[in-house]
Amino acid sequence: MTHVQRMLETYPGDLGRLDRSLLEACIEACVDCAQTCTACADACLSEDVVSSLTACIRMNLDCADLCEVTSRVLSRHTGSCADLVRSVVEACAQACRSCGEECALHGTAHAHCRVCMDACRQCEQTCRELLVAFG
Amino acid sequence: MTHVQRMLETYPGDLGRLDRSLLEACIEACVDCAQTCTACADACLSEDVVSSLTACIRMNLDCADLCEVTSRVLSRHTGSCADLVRSVVEACAQACRSCGEECALHGTAHAHCRVCMDACRQCEQTCRELLVAFG
Amino acid sequence: MTHVQRMLETYPGDLGRLDRSLLEACIEACVDCAQTCTACADACLSEDVVSSLTACIRMNLDCADLCEVTSRVLSRHTGSCADLVRSVVEACAQACRSCGEECALHGTAHAHCRVCMDACRQCEQTCRELLVAFG
Amino acid sequence: MTHVQRMLETYPGDLGRLDRSLLEACIEACVDCAQTCTACADACLSEDVVSSLTACIRMNLDCADLCEVTSRVLSRHTGSCADLVRSVVEACAQACRSCGEECALHGTAHAHCRVCMDACRQCEQTCRELLVAFG
Repeated sequence: MTHVQRMLETYPGDLGRLDRSLLEACIEACVDCAQTCTACADACLSEDVVSSLTACIRMNLDCADLCEVTSRVLSRHTGSCADLVRSVVEACAQACRSCGEECALHGTAHAHCRVCMDACRQCEQTCRELLVAFG
Repeated sequence: MTHVQRMLETYPGDLGRLDRSLLEACIEACVDCAQTCTACADACLSEDVVSSLTACIRMNLDCADLCEVTSRVLSRHTGSCADLVRSVVEACAQACRSCGEECALHGTAHAHCRVCMDACRQCEQTCRELLVAFG
Repeated sequence: MTHVQRMLETYPGDLGRLDRSLLEACIEACVDCAQTCTACADACLSEDVVSSLTACIRMNLDCADLCEVTSRVLSRHTGSCADLVRSVVEACAQACRSCGEECALHGTAHAHCRVCMDACRQCEQTCRELLVAFG
Repeated sequence: MTHVQRMLETYPGDLGRLDRSLLEACIEACVDCAQTCTACADACLSEDVVSSLTACIRMNLDCADLCEVTSRVLSRHTGSCADLVRSVVEACAQACRSCGEECALHGTAHAHCRVCMDACRQCEQTCRELLVAFG
């Protein structure tokens, strides 16, 4: 059992009617995608063709920041504000979409962009599933 | 001249048709509100009546995180993605609105909540002005 | 294979003589501990006895921030500055130590503090192993 | 009066024997340097000679992260752990030193690196003054 899962199970308050395994999957995808994007920005920086990767680096940095803040907001359940949570998850899905598309352009040439594209798509999909569950 | 302003003036690329002083004001308000919210969460923690301030602390933490990520996204101009920037600024305005309203409930009893309410309102307003300027 | 691992394997530059599996373990422990501490701060907030947990919440917030920044610094390999990396990992180990000790005080009463204590101890240990490997 | 200052003045607990204006100056320098470094990384990304600025971008990103976490830790006074605060401020001073030196190498060619060098030096100096005050 992951720590994400154990923390959800030991939360002393009410988590609401939200599907717990979906929430868990989304937190883990955000945390994972944030790290992957931070690493991809740095890997791009060390490529000889860095000048063709500047838009990718920028998207990586935005996406890392958005995923991180989303993982934080989703890890808090006290006094939750549903509208804000929805806006944050939507912005995160959008960042993952943009970053995944940008990484896809460089995936043939750079293996790290391929890995990052995977992480972004997985995170975008989980965010969209959570948005559907929010109703 | 602030460093925010000097960095905008020395940016080597094109900042687009955006009003520079509005962008500057919004970055500064986000950076400022992030710090104020972090401090307000901690000030609430040290109040005897902390149990009546848990929703406020949660909002403070969310708002600090949202303002911080917004200040970062607005500080990047390379390969900008207008839709993402708009979503992030909207989510930030929403966080500032919720946090400002929550702090307003405690402003009479706790001076730090009054200061934080001011910072949130100022940040929300600047975010909304920027959203109007985005069109 | 995790994304952390895949990003290390596809890094286009030189990772130096550092043990890759140790670096991977430390990044994963930091990312994991950051999320657990964010969740523990929030779980403490929703306890009836929140007034006895304020020092724990503060340590959780510090430790989450330290672990997050450490995971970011350790995910970057371009133009690395060994002294800075060491200082950051040391500060992280210290935050995990303090937070783990504080959580241990509440572990009998609160299951989430027990989980967080585990995450902190694991992260502290991995940081210390990495510091030894740095030499 | 800045919000940083107003939040210190309305803190309901004991701030200890620390010089308040020094603490205020250090929080403000950290917050300011974090934003400047984020902006400098992005400005470097948009330079034609980005391939000669990759070490600078990496230092900018590390320094932004360190300054941000330091501003957060210094904004919390509840249940403070003096050793941790000292370690964080030391790591921040080190990041500012490294980033300022790297930016100094590019200051003649790039005005944004000159501004960033100023912000880093100011933040490093305030951190070191705070470390002296800690004793």
